[in-house]
Amino acid sequence: MFESAEIGHSIGHKEYEDALPALLEGLLDAQYALKEQARFPVIVLINGIEGAGKGETVKLLNEWMDPRLIQVETFDVQTDEELARPPEWRYWRRLPPKGRMGVFFGNWYSQMLQARVAGEIKDAGLEQAIDAAQRFERMLCDEGALIFKFWFHLSKKQMKTRLKVLAEDPLRSWRITPLDWQQSKTYDKFVRHGEHMLRQTSRDYAPWYIIEGNDQNYRALTVGRLLLEGLQAALRTPADKPEQPHAATIGANLEEHQLLASLNMRQVLEKDHYQRQLTLEQARLAGLMRHKRMRRHALIAAFEGNDAAGKGGAIRRVAAALDPRQYHIVPIAAPTDEERAQPYLWRFWRHIPPRGKFTIFDRSWYGRVLVERIEGLCSPADWLRAYGEINDFEETLVRNGVVLVKFWLAIDKDTQLARFEEREKIPHKRFKIGPEDWRNREKWAQYSDAVGDMVDRTSTQLAPWTLVEANDKRFARIKVLRTLNDALAAVLEKE
Amino acid sequence: MFESAEIGHSIGHKEYEDALPALLEGLLDAQYALKEQARFPVIVLINGIEGAGKGETVKLLNEWMDPRLIQVETFDVQTDEELARPPEWRYWRRLPPKGRMGVFFGNWYSQMLQARVAGEIKDAGLEQAIDAAQRFERMLCDEGALIFKFWFHLSKKQMKTRLKVLAEDPLRSWRITPLDWQQSKTYDKFVRHGEHMLRQTSRDYAPWYIIEGNDQNYRALTVGRLLLEGLQAALRTPADKPEQPHAATIGANLEEHQLLASLNMRQVLEKDHYQRQLTLEQARLAGLMRHKRMRRHALIAAFEGNDAAGKGGAIRRVAAALDPRQYHIVPIAAPTDEERAQPYLWRFWRHIPPRGKFTIFDRSWYGRVLVERIEGLCSPADWLRAYGEINDFEETLVRNGVVLVKFWLAIDKDTQLARFEEREKIPHKRFKIGPEDWRNREKWAQYSDAVGDMVDRTSTQLAPWTLVEANDKRFARIKVLRTLNDALAAVLEKE
Repeated sequence: MFESAEIGHSIGHKEYEDALPALLEGLLDAQYALKEQARFPVIVLINGIEGAGKGETVKLLNEWMDPRLIQVETFDVQTDEELARPPEWRYWRRLPPKGRMGVFFGNWYSQMLQARVAGEIKDAGLEQAIDAAQRFERMLCDEGALIFKFWFHLSKKQMKTRLKVLAEDPLRSWRITPLDWQQSKTYDKFVRHGEHMLRQTSRDYAPWYIIEGNDQNYRALTVGRLLLEGLQAALRTPADKPEQPHAATIGANLEEHQLLASLNMRQVLEKDHYQRQLTLEQARLAGLMRHKRMRRHALIAAFEGNDAAGKGGAIRRVAAALDPRQYHIVPIAAPTDEERAQPYLWRFWRHIPPRGKFTIFDRSWYGRVLVERIEGLCSPADWLRAYGEINDFEETLVRNGVVLVKFWLAIDKDTQLARFEEREKIPHKRFKIGPEDWRNREKWAQYSDAVGDMVDRTSTQLAPWTLVEANDKRFARIKVLRTLNDALAAVLEKE
Repeated sequence: MFESAEIGHSIGHKEYEDALPALLEGLLDAQYALKEQARFPVIVLINGIEGAGKGETVKLLNEWMDPRLIQVETFDVQTDEELARPPEWRYWRRLPPKGRMGVFFGNWYSQMLQARVAGEIKDAGLEQAIDAAQRFERMLCDEGALIFKFWFHLSKKQMKTRLKVLAEDPLRSWRITPLDWQQSKTYDKFVRHGEHMLRQTSRDYAPWYIIEGNDQNYRALTVGRLLLEGLQAALRTPADKPEQPHAATIGANLEEHQLLASLNMRQVLEKDHYQRQLTLEQARLAGLMRHKRMRRHALIAAFEGNDAAGKGGAIRRVAAALDPRQYHIVPIAAPTDEERAQPYLWRFWRHIPPRGKFTIFDRSWYGRVLVERIEGLCSPADWLRAYGEINDFEETLVRNGVVLVKFWLAIDKDTQLARFEEREKIPHKRFKIGPEDWRNREKWAQYSDAVGDMVDRTSTQLAPWTLVEANDKRFARIKVLRTLNDALAAVLEKE
C-alpha cells in the first residue's frame, strides 16, 4: 500500500515555481465558490508518519488559500470539558459548517493508531474504532460532506535519515520531539497497523491519499492538486443530486515519477542460469504443493500485466511444474450472461479453489479498476468502490487460509512495440495480436495511472502486489516462480 | 426493538381471505415484472425465533408466487466442498441472478447468532461478523440487489405456550426438535444478542422487518405485503438511477392493531396518591443526582409525544426536584442557520451534558423520523438512514456513561380534542395552541405509524423507549419520574 510512497518522488524548484500560480488561483477560486454555494463542508484529515511534513504542508495550504475560510483543529490533550463527555463530542463541536474547510490534525485515526501501537487497545479495540470511524464518515458524507484523508508517508530509512539530519543541525534539532525518537522505534508497528486501518477505511466516498513526504515540493504540490481536483469535482456536482458521494478523483498521474517508472527494467537472466533456476524453482513448487500442510491451504495466483508482457509464458512455466489435477487456469474474458446477472465478484468466487488446490487467474478481478475503468465499461462510482470491495474479498480469502499472490508483469513501451511487430510477422503468433491491442497501446499513460492507483490501494500486507520487470522473459518467469514459492513456503513452513 | 412484535397481533379468517386475492395478484405481477426487467435480484433473509413460523411463511410464499422464480436456500451443515473453501463461498454460489428471488434460511445472521449464543465466539467475534455482513450487504445493494430481512419473533411466553401446545398434540409433537427445547432455555441470550445484531445491521438500504409470529394469518399477510410494497417500489425506480438503494418502505400501518393501541389508556392516579408519590419520587431524583457515582455519569431525558400530551407539565415536575445548576432544558424547534449548516445530529451533540449533569430535551433527534418524515422536510433517504444514525448516536452516549431515557407521552384522540378546546378557552393557555396543532391532528394516523416505526427501530436494550399513558396527567408524571429514577438507580446503585 505504501510502495509508491517510498520511491523518492521529488519535484524540482523550477517545476514547482512554474506550477504554483495556476494552482493557487484554482484553489482560491474553489474556496470562494465553496463559500458562495455553501452546500457542503470540507473536512481534511491529516495523518501519517512523524516528520513527513504534515505540519509544513498545512501551513503552506493556509498561505495559499484564504485562511479565514479554513479552520485548523488539533486534538491532542483533551480539555476538562471534553473529558467530561463522550470522546466523539470534541469532533462534533469542531465540524466545519457548510461552505468552510476544516483541517483535522490528530483526529480519530491518530487516536486509534497511537492507542494500538502503545498496546492500550488490542486488535478487537482497533476494529471497533475503525467501525465507528466508518459509520461516522459515512454519515458525514450522507449529509453532504467532502472528506479528504491524507496519509503522509516516509520509509523507515527516509525517516531515520531525516531524524539524523535534523539532529545534526543545531538550528533545527529542537524540532525533534521525544515522540519522533519513539516513533522511529515503533515504526514497523505503526506502519503495520496503519496499513490495516487505511485499508479498512479507504472507501469510495472518503478514500485515503498516500503522500510521500520526503520532498517538500512534491508533497505540497500533490496535496494542493488533489484538493483542487476534488473540490472542483464536488462543486460541479449538481445540487439536485446531493446523494452522490463526493469522491475526489484519484490522482496518481500528478507527476511523471511513477511507481512503474521506478522499476529497473534492465534486469536480465542468461540462458544457462535461467535453465538451472527454472528446474530448481519448478521442483520446489511441485514439492511445496505436495507439502502435508497444503491440505489446510489453497493457492491463488492472479496475473495482470501489459499486453504482450508474457503472462501466458509465465503461466505455462508455473503449470509445467504441476500435475494437471492440482490446478485450474481461469482465463478472464468478457463476462457471460450468467455472470452479468450477478454482482461483479461472483465470477471470481465461483473459481475459488478448495484446500489443497491451486487456481491461476489469467487476468483477474482487477479488470474492474483497469480495463473497465479506462474503457468506461462501468461507472466511476463502480470502480471507485471496487478497491474496497477487492480488499474485503482478498482479506476473506487470506483469513481463510488461501495463499494469494498477485503479479503485475511490466514491460516498457519499446519492448511492447517490438513484440507486437514480431507477433504480426510470425504466423503461429498472429492470433495473439489484433486491433484492440494497438488501441490499448494508445492508452499507455492511462493504464500506467490506473496501475499506480491499483497498487496504492490494493497492495496490502495480507495480499501484496509483486511488480515483475518483464522486458526479459526469463527474468520475469523466474521471479514469478520464486515469488510463488516464497509465499507458499512462508505459510507452509512457518506453522 | 421487539415491543410491537409482542402485543398479540392477529388477523381473523374473513379479513385474511378478503385480503388474499389482491395480494396474490400483486405479488405475481411484481414477480413477472422482476423477471421481465431482470435489472436486479431479490434476496430475502429469514431469521428469528424457532417456532415463529419461518418455514410455514416461506412455504406459503411459494404457494402464492411462481415457485419457478424463487430459489429457497438453506445453509445448515456445510458440505465437503463448502468446508474446503472460505465460509462466504456458499453464499456467493447461491446468490439469485438478476430477475430472480432467493430466500435464504440459516444465513450469515443465524450462523453468527448461534455461534455467539453457544459461546463459540465472544462479543468481538460477533462484531467482526456483523461488520462483514454489513460490507457484504452494502456491496450487494451497490450492485443493485433488493434485500429484505425478516425477523420472526415470539415473546418468551408465546414461545413456551407454543411448545406446550405442540407437545400435547400427538399429531404435531414430532415438529418439536431438540433445538426448540434448547432455544427455550437460551431465549434470553438469543434475543439479547439478536437485538444487538439487528440494531447494528438495520440500515436504510437493507432494513430489518420484525414480524410477530404468533398468528399465522398476521405473519403471512404482513410478510406478503412488505414484499409487495418493496418490490413495487424497486420496480418503479428508474433504470437510470441504479445507485438509489432499493429501500423497502416501512410498513407499520399494515393493520389496525398497533403498538400505541395496545396501551391501557384508562390508567389514572388519585390526587392524594399522586401528591405522596410525587414528593417521594422527586426526593428520590434529587438524591440520585447527588449520588457520588453520578460524577461518572450524565443523564439525558428525551421527551416526545402527541401535541397536548403534557410534555411541559411532566418536564416541570422533573425540574422541580432539582437545583437549576444541575440541569438544562433544551427545547427543540426549527434549526437555526448555524445548525442547518451542519449534519443533522450536530444540534443535539452540542447540548450533550458533561458528567454529573442532566439535559432534558423537549422534543429531540427523533424529529427527523416524526415531523420531518411526515411533513416531507427531509427526503425519504434521509429519514430512512436516520434510524441507524440515531442508534449509533445513542450507543455512543450510553457506552460513555450517559444514562439515556426516552419518553413517548401518548394520549388518545378524544383527550387531545378536549385539551385543544380547553386551551382555546382559557386565556393563559391560548399561546399553547395554534392552527399548526389542528393541522397535525389531521395527520393522527400518519403520526401513529411513524411512532410505531420509530419504536420498532430505535427501542433497544441500551436505550429503550418508555411509552407513557398520558390521558391522566398525574399518572403520566409519576410514570416519568419513576422511570427516570429507576434508570438512574440501575446504573448508580449497581456499581
